[in-house]
Amino acid sequence: MTTLLVVKQILNANDQLAAENRAVFAAHQTFVLNLMASPGAGKTSLILASQHRLPGSIRAGVIEGDLASSLDAATIAAEGIPVVQINTGGGCHLDAPMIHTVLPELPLSEIELLFIENVGNLVCPANFDLGANQAVVVASVPEGHDKPYKYPGIFAVADVVILNKADLLEVFAFDVDYFRRGLEMVNPKAPLYVLSCRTGQGLTEWIKWLLDQAEVKKTEGSLLTRK
Amino acid sequence: MTTLLVVKQILNANDQLAAENRAVFAAHQTFVLNLMASPGAGKTSLILASQHRLPGSIRAGVIEGDLASSLDAATIAAEGIPVVQINTGGGCHLDAPMIHTVLPELPLSEIELLFIENVGNLVCPANFDLGANQAVVVASVPEGHDKPYKYPGIFAVADVVILNKADLLEVFAFDVDYFRRGLEMVNPKAPLYVLSCRTGQGLTEWIKWLLDQAEVKKTEGSLLTRK
Repeated sequence: MTTLLVVKQILNANDQLAAENRAVFAAHQTFVLNLMASPGAGKTSLILASQHRLPGSIRAGVIEGDLASSLDAATIAAEGIPVVQINTGGGCHLDAPMIHTVLPELPLSEIELLFIENVGNLVCPANFDLGANQAVVVASVPEGHDKPYKYPGIFAVADVVILNKADLLEVFAFDVDYFRRGLEMVNPKAPLYVLSCRTGQGLTEWIKWLLDQAEVKKTEGSLLTRK
Repeated sequence: MTTLLVVKQILNANDQLAAENRAVFAAHQTFVLNLMASPGAGKTSLILASQHRLPGSIRAGVIEGDLASSLDAATIAAEGIPVVQINTGGGCHLDAPMIHTVLPELPLSEIELLFIENVGNLVCPANFDLGANQAVVVASVPEGHDKPYKYPGIFAVADVVILNKADLLEVFAFDVDYFRRGLEMVNPKAPLYVLSCRTGQGLTEWIKWLLDQAEVKKTEGSLLTRK
């Protein structure tokens, strides 16, 4: 009984800070994506490929989550994008308190689009609201087409799903229809974008979705509305 | 203080049952591997590729861990290998109590080599002793050569590391030396086997390692010593 109580308190604390984060993002009119994926699925590649294709007027920022190291943060900083690294010290996911702690380190008033790159893990990040506007799950072709069936929890919380490394569909005999049916079983609403950050194929449709979200937000006074 | 106490009790309970599992495996002279990897790295493929190349006298068994589904268990059962499925119901790792619960379902006296396929997760499984003889971490080329730097915890607990999908080294511009240096930083002792379960390249060396372990165990009355 004590254990259950403690768990509930922890979850509430996360949700409370997620709500605070959300309010801070709204106050700064910053549109926020929480990128979740297996290790090496291409979260950093998606951030860079997206940044290169967005209108130049949209200024991006990144929060990098890793157990250890700052390799991805260094890659992103080299592109001139504001970035903050969170090292979880072995923790398997980002949580709202971690995001809350680093927000003062980012120039939010100059960031219209904030990517939060979660720890590479297709399980635990699903359970922690960070205060982002959209949850993006990035799957990749080499992982196999059975992932929505085997990791339903994270696909269920996705607002949108990316299937990256699509230039290798044939090499891995990847059945996109089977993947799509699995996704629809656990999440009938999330759109799926099949693309390759390496070759650029499919990125146009993803960028259109991102800008459409921005249009929706526009009426709410967020992304793209600042002069 | 209360929270810390609860966590400690849980860890102790796991370690106690891991010790019990280890005793059961020893009593049955069963050699046990705990396979840990990212989703889709090739744990099931490694089990099947190994099984196909081991001497016919060695009888294998499998415990399959998944959040949901029994896709991999079905694949293994189709090969005539005894298999038990554990569905964690969303849990991010296997633990010793789960293994303890399913042991009566396996014909251990007929199994010389037991593969435990952990949940696909490069973080959490590292923290839970299952009672296995050897911890095997399976990385794969498409995940990128930076994984030991970014997920040091799981590479640190490995007794042996597999780098799978080596037929795609060039496609992914994968730097094996960089990967190896990262591994050696966190774990100077674990041997690394670079192989491809799909093409079969490199599997001979891995099988030799496995049989060498068996030889070591032989003197302890385990694998390969039963008539």
